[in-house]
Amino acid sequence: MRPQEIIAIKRDGGELSAAAIKEFIDGVVDGSWADYQTSALIMAMILRGLNLAEQDAITRAMLESGDVIDLKSIDLPKADKHSTGGVGDKTSLIIAPLAAACGVAVPMISGRGLGHTGGTLDKLESIKGYNVNLTTEQFKSVIEKCGFAMAGQTATIAPADKKIYALRDATATVPYIPLIVASIMSKKLAEGLDALMLDVKTGSGAFMPKFEDSRRLAESLVATGKNFGVRTEAVISDMSQPLGQFVGNSHEVYECIKILRNETSGQAADTRELSLELTARMLVLSGVAADISEARSLALSKLESGKALESFRQNIELQNGDPSICDDPEKLIETSLTTFELLSKDTGFVSSIDALTVGEAVVSLGGGRTKAEDGIDACVGYECTVKIGDNITKGDVLGRIFCRTEEQSSLAEQYLQKAYSITDTSVKHPQLIRDAVS
Amino acid sequence: MRPQEIIAIKRDGGELSAAAIKEFIDGVVDGSWADYQTSALIMAMILRGLNLAEQDAITRAMLESGDVIDLKSIDLPKADKHSTGGVGDKTSLIIAPLAAACGVAVPMISGRGLGHTGGTLDKLESIKGYNVNLTTEQFKSVIEKCGFAMAGQTATIAPADKKIYALRDATATVPYIPLIVASIMSKKLAEGLDALMLDVKTGSGAFMPKFEDSRRLAESLVATGKNFGVRTEAVISDMSQPLGQFVGNSHEVYECIKILRNETSGQAADTRELSLELTARMLVLSGVAADISEARSLALSKLESGKALESFRQNIELQNGDPSICDDPEKLIETSLTTFELLSKDTGFVSSIDALTVGEAVVSLGGGRTKAEDGIDACVGYECTVKIGDNITKGDVLGRIFCRTEEQSSLAEQYLQKAYSITDTSVKHPQLIRDAVS
Repeated sequence: MRPQEIIAIKRDGGELSAAAIKEFIDGVVDGSWADYQTSALIMAMILRGLNLAEQDAITRAMLESGDVIDLKSIDLPKADKHSTGGVGDKTSLIIAPLAAACGVAVPMISGRGLGHTGGTLDKLESIKGYNVNLTTEQFKSVIEKCGFAMAGQTATIAPADKKIYALRDATATVPYIPLIVASIMSKKLAEGLDALMLDVKTGSGAFMPKFEDSRRLAESLVATGKNFGVRTEAVISDMSQPLGQFVGNSHEVYECIKILRNETSGQAADTRELSLELTARMLVLSGVAADISEARSLALSKLESGKALESFRQNIELQNGDPSICDDPEKLIETSLTTFELLSKDTGFVSSIDALTVGEAVVSLGGGRTKAEDGIDACVGYECTVKIGDNITKGDVLGRIFCRTEEQSSLAEQYLQKAYSITDTSVKHPQLIRDAVS
Repeated sequence: MRPQEIIAIKRDGGELSAAAIKEFIDGVVDGSWADYQTSALIMAMILRGLNLAEQDAITRAMLESGDVIDLKSIDLPKADKHSTGGVGDKTSLIIAPLAAACGVAVPMISGRGLGHTGGTLDKLESIKGYNVNLTTEQFKSVIEKCGFAMAGQTATIAPADKKIYALRDATATVPYIPLIVASIMSKKLAEGLDALMLDVKTGSGAFMPKFEDSRRLAESLVATGKNFGVRTEAVISDMSQPLGQFVGNSHEVYECIKILRNETSGQAADTRELSLELTARMLVLSGVAADISEARSLALSKLESGKALESFRQNIELQNGDPSICDDPEKLIETSLTTFELLSKDTGFVSSIDALTVGEAVVSLGGGRTKAEDGIDACVGYECTVKIGDNITKGDVLGRIFCRTEEQSSLAEQYLQKAYSITDTSVKHPQLIRDAVS
């Protein structure tokens, strides 16, 4: 069929056959579909809707547009965790080594940060020398040696997704669940997994802030994962406030190393808890543990014994990073930065710390990107010294801005003051895991 | 606003302000909008809808993207006729010289044929030497001398429309009334008119075959014309069968010259009648005649007296064509062609001559284009020797195929046999003018 004929079917509200979808996706990769035809069809898909069969057909066609990593030579269950992205969300750096220490192979392909949300690759690159650009062979070899590898999407993994995502970003066609699912799952299914644990964020810092949207996204992701024969489960976790203690790449790695060293501060407790919970669920899903309580015990023992840290140290060595940060995490913190304390103007209970605003503040410091091609300053960041529910007094430190110039700090301060709400009545700490879909 | 923000407004069903639409159209012309952004917005416009204010804003922005021809130096009412296109629809070649002979200045900017519908420029170019590529100055000068000029859209007339139309053609986003209206009217309004007579076709050979769609298109065109201060009226005319006697460029010019010479055959009667009716309505709309009966008398007198033919002869000379065809129209007919007679397989009344199929048959002979860049064979064509309602006997000639090869004629015959239906019960001649909107 000509592109126009395929576009017309969806324009008129029809269902696209798997064959038509395959023609479209193949055409995107081989260039026989022009970008303007792709973007017209994508808009029609959003406004007319895609059903589950179409969602799966797009996922399959995008998956098949590239290579699937063959991990058959590794005789362990293969599992990964994927998060839909948030502010201060650094659990991948704990979960991957922890799950590996528990006997699961973790082939983790991650992305970069964009807008107010961070990206695992950027965090890893704040470790001196750490190489996220692995060939498929290197990627497999690192997993064989230390149980997990973390790298970026190569050109041969779901190339159709890469091209389509760039177009969607430029045409206001990102926020549509079936296309989000196809984009995420085409990459994750290329990892050759047995099990996939999804962390769908909800709240202002999440990609889909509304709970009902997050839940629909979780359900859609799980449905497609299962349809592809991968044991898939999702939790919906809170992203109304930043996760953990720090936002900003090198500070987030620092927080993870401290957790892996069992030197956790109170503000990092939620990072630790969410990492343990997601790892435990991954272990059950992978068949390594019989139930969640057995899995939690196993994960906790590997964390407390230092085995998870050991696994991360091995991985850092294998990916050319500086492993000494495992012994001396303070090395990750740039000492020449200016620290500015954000003080509370009120007394009461912290009722909100808007995650989106905190994320934007860190972007304003240079710690994030507004465009995909922007550089990033890994050293700047923000520390949340209080969390929602904490009781504070006027003048207390709400957080600390780590930046390079006075101008940066005053701009970030403007953002950050708006992020906080203080009330007279007591406020509950938000529930970390709001729901689960399996 | 960034393109994404404008696209998102329409994606979410909002109304676009005139300012946002102007940014979009200006961006299309200056290249700051990428084609894939334009096509995404166009698809969103179609699926979310555009109201009359948006339709007018697009029309205005496209009009203002180019020049408006200044005809103030010509002290006559300026009027044009525009048809939405059909099969055998050649009335422009009669109406322009006839209206000019009646005292109206006609600045007629026309298009080329695409698919099963013909185009005035292609018909004119079957006159040896006729130049349709006039500069604005030449165009004005021809009108000043003979009362009308016929030319193609220059690069400075509504350039945004040209770019957007090409994209719509490639992205299955052509059939949407507000965009059709904006495309037609941005060009027609650039002619600097006082009055505009629209001929909206309905039936299988029309751009919009369904009567209710044709009527909605007519109403939309008239509304926008009036909103721009141009006296605008539309008729909805029959395109269920081809108009007149011939389909095919040089044959259609032949039919027109014969009508202008008052040598009309019965099969060409509807071409003559529709031309007279549209001209008469144009004269009333332009204020040259007080009412339709006075206008018909005036037009008829100019046709019968040969003044209209004289006007066309002058125009052909001014546009470098061979005026001797006015004296010897047979010159237009290529004599080396093979003529094949299509015979009726039944006896009865002709109940349909599917105009779309006839148009496609002529395209198959090389007489039309399937792509904008295709060449065209002006000489091939088809003659309708019977019309709907005629009573025929098995073996009677339904029509004649004029073509170059045996293969062409057998392919065209296959098409054409399917176009005809013959019934036992008598069939009315179709009403030529189905409705009018003013």
